[in-house]
Amino acid sequence: MKPLALPSQLAAPLLPGGSWDVVEAARCGVVSAGIKKPDQPPVRDDVAVLLADGVAAALTTRSSAAAAPCRWTRALVPGPVRAVVVNSGNANASTGLQGEEDTAATAAAVAGVLGCEPERVLVCSTGVIGVPLPMGRLLPAAQEAAARALEGADDGHRLARAILTTDLVPKEAAVDVGGVKVGGVAKGSGMIYPDMATMLAFVTTDARVEPAQLQRLLREVADRTFNAITVDGDTSTNDTLIVQATGTGLVAEPGMAAWEALALGLETVCRKLARDIARDGEGATTLVEVAVSGLADDAEARRAARAVVRSNLLKSAIFGRDPNWGRVVGALGAAGVPHLDTLDLDLAGVPVLRGGRPLAFDERAASQALRAPEVRIEARLPGPGLGFAWGCDLTEGYVKINADYRS
Amino acid sequence: MKPLALPSQLAAPLLPGGSWDVVEAARCGVVSAGIKKPDQPPVRDDVAVLLADGVAAALTTRSSAAAAPCRWTRALVPGPVRAVVVNSGNANASTGLQGEEDTAATAAAVAGVLGCEPERVLVCSTGVIGVPLPMGRLLPAAQEAAARALEGADDGHRLARAILTTDLVPKEAAVDVGGVKVGGVAKGSGMIYPDMATMLAFVTTDARVEPAQLQRLLREVADRTFNAITVDGDTSTNDTLIVQATGTGLVAEPGMAAWEALALGLETVCRKLARDIARDGEGATTLVEVAVSGLADDAEARRAARAVVRSNLLKSAIFGRDPNWGRVVGALGAAGVPHLDTLDLDLAGVPVLRGGRPLAFDERAASQALRAPEVRIEARLPGPGLGFAWGCDLTEGYVKINADYRS
Repeated sequence: MKPLALPSQLAAPLLPGGSWDVVEAARCGVVSAGIKKPDQPPVRDDVAVLLADGVAAALTTRSSAAAAPCRWTRALVPGPVRAVVVNSGNANASTGLQGEEDTAATAAAVAGVLGCEPERVLVCSTGVIGVPLPMGRLLPAAQEAAARALEGADDGHRLARAILTTDLVPKEAAVDVGGVKVGGVAKGSGMIYPDMATMLAFVTTDARVEPAQLQRLLREVADRTFNAITVDGDTSTNDTLIVQATGTGLVAEPGMAAWEALALGLETVCRKLARDIARDGEGATTLVEVAVSGLADDAEARRAARAVVRSNLLKSAIFGRDPNWGRVVGALGAAGVPHLDTLDLDLAGVPVLRGGRPLAFDERAASQALRAPEVRIEARLPGPGLGFAWGCDLTEGYVKINADYRS
Repeated sequence: MKPLALPSQLAAPLLPGGSWDVVEAARCGVVSAGIKKPDQPPVRDDVAVLLADGVAAALTTRSSAAAAPCRWTRALVPGPVRAVVVNSGNANASTGLQGEEDTAATAAAVAGVLGCEPERVLVCSTGVIGVPLPMGRLLPAAQEAAARALEGADDGHRLARAILTTDLVPKEAAVDVGGVKVGGVAKGSGMIYPDMATMLAFVTTDARVEPAQLQRLLREVADRTFNAITVDGDTSTNDTLIVQATGTGLVAEPGMAAWEALALGLETVCRKLARDIARDGEGATTLVEVAVSGLADDAEARRAARAVVRSNLLKSAIFGRDPNWGRVVGALGAAGVPHLDTLDLDLAGVPVLRGGRPLAFDERAASQALRAPEVRIEARLPGPGLGFAWGCDLTEGYVKINADYRS
């Protein structure tokens, strides 16, 4: 049987070594400011300015405890944007009015160097919660990063490393689809220790696109990519996804070939980055991909897939290489998924249920199949929907990181 | 500051050593049938008949993959009920039409011994999913258990042990509130390996009560007790809570003192059993109690408390004895809880936030306080609601049990 594939699963070929700076007009300056421990010398890159004059769309956390920079950013998009300033080491969350003022001051400092309004500068922070930003370090660092970007600094790889925290591997992707370029970087390995929490993703394109249309496209793509991954089911106070479009390339409007190219490019880059986050989940040894066909529509199918991928029991079973299909049925049932008496289910390519009935299968071979670095769980039910979700196994390493990690 | 306490937190004193059989007219027969491995000799008690002629109310899993015995039971309550038959070792879930027939045949076998209609016998199963019941063993065992109950066998303690699986400690409680007796037993340590999944709870009372009124009371009490615990957030295919009322004692109708006594007794027994389940969660070292005051009403406050107690990040932090209040704020925010800028928060009695602002506190002393076998997290917000939830820490032991356990 052919594996399930969304039309949107079709991916453009990745450009080897490509990153956020695949768009020529996009420049980033990265500096080392020592934000996390302001009483000690800086030890790593932690402040960056992402300069890409044009328009931007963004999605920020739905948490009611959203940090000040998320509230600043969401008020300004979709719209014209010159740059993004990001720091790690401090989330500027649970910091009250002071946090609001610090965010505005950071934007203003960068805007001063770039020669634009502060409202053209978006802000992201990630790190410890409940501690005021060390503005004496942050402001000069942000200005220096902005100056470096203006001078033409252009190091996407350095940016990808600068935003890493407990995740291990830089996450980058870039494509060129029919002349439309899209590139991006991301960080996040689940919601982690709040000292170093949050998923951040920064994407650029050279397409010339209307901001409200870019925002709609971003929301659709995010629902199928970043919103379809889970490491531990927790949402951070600072999650942010920003797309900057320089408009230096092709005009992309719905109905045009360049729009389809932009959509495919954005989906490819966001899916690659999202899967890399799931794969690099804290303590994870296996990327788990759940594909569900059937149900009322794609959104319902995706909801079912997410319910499976976030089950602690299933995640533990995958770590144990246990072809324990009862946990998939249990997770689907707990999510209220109907018609399970008709379920077809494959684990890592091994058929285990047909029409809701258990099949005899070789448990040892199935367990062996679960040792692969990527495991597909495929559930088929009646109906037109199709949805994917990605996650990882739950390991003793996850518990160790989150119980013992203390900066 | 005085700790938050629900009016319903008031508890009747427990009867030392009391169990399900505190009601004299309630009798149970327990036998060892070898349901789990029908090709081997029986090794432990695994079939029981709970005889308590009268009426019953019950709540069963909301899973859309509910097992056949749950569907049988929920069709018969609230109403007159003579007995409950329960087996462990096999869940009779994902077993299709055969499963329906086996459930009906089990009820009929017990009814034959008791001399009643099969529809007066409720059925519970727990154990492996997707394997047909070994009816050649189950039917004679159920008949023998029924005969033993009829003869007056009366071993609540043996029942409490017979239904245990990966949980370690028998869970029993009994009270006598102004002449109304309530007793119960429970099993469950989270949803566990589907070979041995499920929360089951059996409660008796001697009150004379109208079945529909008992059902309404049970639902209210369950929302504050069994539905307010979480070990891993997963719902089983077989979860069942049954209350049998023999009617041999006081008449209890709303507005009467005996009704209030029944309500308090039921709440006390169910809360004790529910907390014992949380405490005995797989791999758990600490019972976590979350109390939230404020928000629109008790249900909203309870929803917020549950969001905190089920956060993997918070559960890991408790295991690490890390007074990491950012994870509480993160979990509340992710659940959309409003007004977090006014939050008062105490961890294990240590004040950490007032009016949304972090307080300085002694981290070492707070970490020490988190080593207690019971940890209270108390969050206060504006509004009249009040809700409690219980859970446990997430440990390397949980992962080990669920990854490695294989029968």
